[in-house]
Amino acid sequence: MIEAANKLGYVPNALAQRFALRKSGNLGVILPMLPKVNLFSTYYFSEVLSGIGMTAKQRGYDLLLLFREPHEPRDYASLFRTQKIDGCIILGAQDIPSERAALQELRDGEYPFCLVNQRFEGEAFCTVDADQRMGSYHAGKHLVKQGYRRIGFLNGPAEYSNSLDRLKGYQQALKEAGLPYNPEHVLVGNYSRKSGYGLAEAVAKLVESGEVDAVIAANDRMAIGLMQGLKELGIRIGEHLALVGCDDSDVSRMTEPPLTSIRVPFYEVGCEAASRLLDAMTENEPPAPFEIKLPVKLIERASSQVSLATRD
Amino acid sequence: MIEAANKLGYVPNALAQRFALRKSGNLGVILPMLPKVNLFSTYYFSEVLSGIGMTAKQRGYDLLLLFREPHEPRDYASLFRTQKIDGCIILGAQDIPSERAALQELRDGEYPFCLVNQRFEGEAFCTVDADQRMGSYHAGKHLVKQGYRRIGFLNGPAEYSNSLDRLKGYQQALKEAGLPYNPEHVLVGNYSRKSGYGLAEAVAKLVESGEVDAVIAANDRMAIGLMQGLKELGIRIGEHLALVGCDDSDVSRMTEPPLTSIRVPFYEVGCEAASRLLDAMTENEPPAPFEIKLPVKLIERASSQVSLATRD
Repeated sequence: MIEAANKLGYVPNALAQRFALRKSGNLGVILPMLPKVNLFSTYYFSEVLSGIGMTAKQRGYDLLLLFREPHEPRDYASLFRTQKIDGCIILGAQDIPSERAALQELRDGEYPFCLVNQRFEGEAFCTVDADQRMGSYHAGKHLVKQGYRRIGFLNGPAEYSNSLDRLKGYQQALKEAGLPYNPEHVLVGNYSRKSGYGLAEAVAKLVESGEVDAVIAANDRMAIGLMQGLKELGIRIGEHLALVGCDDSDVSRMTEPPLTSIRVPFYEVGCEAASRLLDAMTENEPPAPFEIKLPVKLIERASSQVSLATRD
Repeated sequence: MIEAANKLGYVPNALAQRFALRKSGNLGVILPMLPKVNLFSTYYFSEVLSGIGMTAKQRGYDLLLLFREPHEPRDYASLFRTQKIDGCIILGAQDIPSERAALQELRDGEYPFCLVNQRFEGEAFCTVDADQRMGSYHAGKHLVKQGYRRIGFLNGPAEYSNSLDRLKGYQQALKEAGLPYNPEHVLVGNYSRKSGYGLAEAVAKLVESGEVDAVIAANDRMAIGLMQGLKELGIRIGEHLALVGCDDSDVSRMTEPPLTSIRVPFYEVGCEAASRLLDAMTENEPPAPFEIKLPVKLIERASSQVSLATRD
């Protein structure tokens, strides 16, 4: 039998060993598969994945990418049961019942996992996140300092805890400046460039009626789409409207005018998630729940220069 | 024993089955790990990986990413022998002896693999590539049509077959226009933005001495670095020097002036490589060697407008 196996080029030992140790040597990364989006081409995913990949490599793990379609049933635990992975990091999780159930199953099975950029109210899962609330708070404070008083907000969908965090930071900045919060000045896209572009007319109306003189967008992609749409409608950023994005992606430096944005350490978020999870896996115990928030920083560019209303 | 296994939550059947069928359900992707480069953030890798990932997902495969450090010994065959993967796609292969040996071992072991954007002279490996030669040929023809006669070339390293292809296309365009080929007008970077930036002084000298009035860069990153460096030296693209990049990455639309570039279907290259490899794997036979070249296209923008010398 061994001879036959050898003849066939089989190396059963490695597999048998992994089988015995319940060890695949793979760190799983669950990724959403979004229609018409080249996932790796988005700044957020590419940076987080680079951080995870670099850390996994240093620790001797390979990365198993597992694409999840939006309406596919979620069954993360079976990835552990069939020894495809030893641990997993989940990107783009959504606060919907099937996701919660799949994560609870992981926790109950004591399978090591870590969420990136998503928290679940009422659950103590391991999470690494950037401090998105402080991001839009800084953006709001900055705009107030520049002389803007009618600040709108272009947010992402509420299934993402990040969207809720950002909204809170925006509200906090308004409150501290003594400005009223008006839900009609909050628009919602889906974090795509296209959704920002599609909301340009709505924003243009708010600008033309004088209701809004500045907008904070929850990511750069939507900010850039909005910028393109407004340009076509004759509204100039930095002149008729101030704009602040979020992510400080490569493109924020290349728009005309360059986009003020919130620098979010996505690469470090990926490193941190992988490194804490791999630590826990080495200890061979289910990780004590942790919730890490990495700091963000406002990067000032021309899209949010001093308001015309307050210029000398 | 089975009871004990059940109690422990083991599901030996799936693994045993994979073991018997020699099937992991994983498609391996070998990626170079470059120092200080967030791989997924580069247009080339992110697009190719998106194409591979989308195709693998549709066919029920997961993607195992295997990072290879530049000087790490290459042993791809062991990934098959230990059943980590059922097939593999190799990105960023280099024409060096250790790489050739590792690939020959794969072929001799009849392990299914496919190279992306790299050919090996004298070997009939499966390869999917873009027609890079035609790319720089089109770039050269375009510059000649715009009135440029002293066209330089900023290439990548010779270990990549793509660099050699691009050089040939450039030489062919010169030849057809009756222009002399001068090796001193060919500079070599390493495909990074920084390397383009670092060569700005050398290019500036060629421009100032009147030896060069246009440059073709072998990728957009180097073109953008060169652009930034030349700007600091007071040389304006589209006025003192025409510039054509290659990749037509997102940023080519955002530079000032926008960059003429060669659109390369990297996403489709990834899809094609994965789909042909998975076809071969399903047939359970070593794939008959194939060499696919996908067409490229010149996208004209302001960085290569009509030469001052020939403007009315």
